[in-house]
Amino acid sequence: MKIHEFTMAPNPRRVRIFLAEKGITVPYEQVDLMTAKNRAPEFLAKNPMGGVPVLELDDGSFIAESVAICRYFETLHPEPRLMGGPDAKDAATVEMWQRRMEFQILGTVAGCFRNTSPFFKGRITQVAEWGEVCRRDALKRLEWLDSELANRQFVAGDRFTIADITALVGIDFGRMVDIKIAPGLKNLERWYDAVSSRPSAKA
Amino acid sequence: MKIHEFTMAPNPRRVRIFLAEKGITVPYEQVDLMTAKNRAPEFLAKNPMGGVPVLELDDGSFIAESVAICRYFETLHPEPRLMGGPDAKDAATVEMWQRRMEFQILGTVAGCFRNTSPFFKGRITQVAEWGEVCRRDALKRLEWLDSELANRQFVAGDRFTIADITALVGIDFGRMVDIKIAPGLKNLERWYDAVSSRPSAKA
Repeated sequence: MKIHEFTMAPNPRRVRIFLAEKGITVPYEQVDLMTAKNRAPEFLAKNPMGGVPVLELDDGSFIAESVAICRYFETLHPEPRLMGGPDAKDAATVEMWQRRMEFQILGTVAGCFRNTSPFFKGRITQVAEWGEVCRRDALKRLEWLDSELANRQFVAGDRFTIADITALVGIDFGRMVDIKIAPGLKNLERWYDAVSSRPSAKA
Repeated sequence: MKIHEFTMAPNPRRVRIFLAEKGITVPYEQVDLMTAKNRAPEFLAKNPMGGVPVLELDDGSFIAESVAICRYFETLHPEPRLMGGPDAKDAATVEMWQRRMEFQILGTVAGCFRNTSPFFKGRITQVAEWGEVCRRDALKRLEWLDSELANRQFVAGDRFTIADITALVGIDFGRMVDIKIAPGLKNLERWYDAVSSRPSAKA
């Protein structure tokens, strides 16, 4: 078993933090996105979408998509529960917050990065105006997240979950395009200090 | 328990099909998106993102996000399994395909619709050029999905799953912006005929 990833990219970090929180060690193999190794036929055979990370299982099959890789390890090693459950309401609540963090925070930051960063110039069709819509949305969503965090410790409730991982990775990725927690968002800052100082954040 | 939804919108249909496949009946209450009832304070108290569907539980709590709502019912009523499992590899594989269908098919179609349709004019900042990037991506992804379906019956393998639901809803939503299965995509057409003729597709 190994995970094909690229340390500098945001999605692989989601899985690394997740595994660190679980205390699971998996060998990593780097796929150099800077030289577009993820667009080479050998890698596309592993994941036709070209994204990292990809989990390679011992039977030769591949699991792509960060959250699906997390699900694999959560199912095998449920404790500590990072994806909620075992009851239905808790599982659904954590999944709701994971998705909100993915679409509203990480997704908007990624939309800004992909459409405005020189890294993607010539690799994809960039629409700078859309990148700015994403930036504005990301900043608005950070304000909203601050208000949500007024009454609880973590994104999905009173314990650390995958939703915190997605939000942390999204916010840190935001630095690449100057999307930052605005001054005065005290709840978000308190949360950010707590999650970014966990040992897993360095994974 | 009830589900706040809007019959004409794509995301509520995902949940309706999912529940129909499970044989579960839940009362629905309509939220008129045409008159922006989903942006009114009463609805934003249920889901600050303003999206439908939202599951209201008997304890007064709310679960938003279609896939999280599906997770709620899958956890309570695992059979027939639409989200994979119980083993880790199967759960992860179905989640991978669900996400691919969500980002590559439904997401690209929605990106085109939101940025080009008169429905959203004045409601959100539309970037028509981005809408056309989404359209082109959606059409490319349908070609790719056709190739994936050459060797198996359904999107995630040999049985119907939530990944088929997301793909079906995405493709049907595509009609709104003239994104259609191109002539000659025989595998995709075979799959589409099979899934759209299931009784659940009418839910």
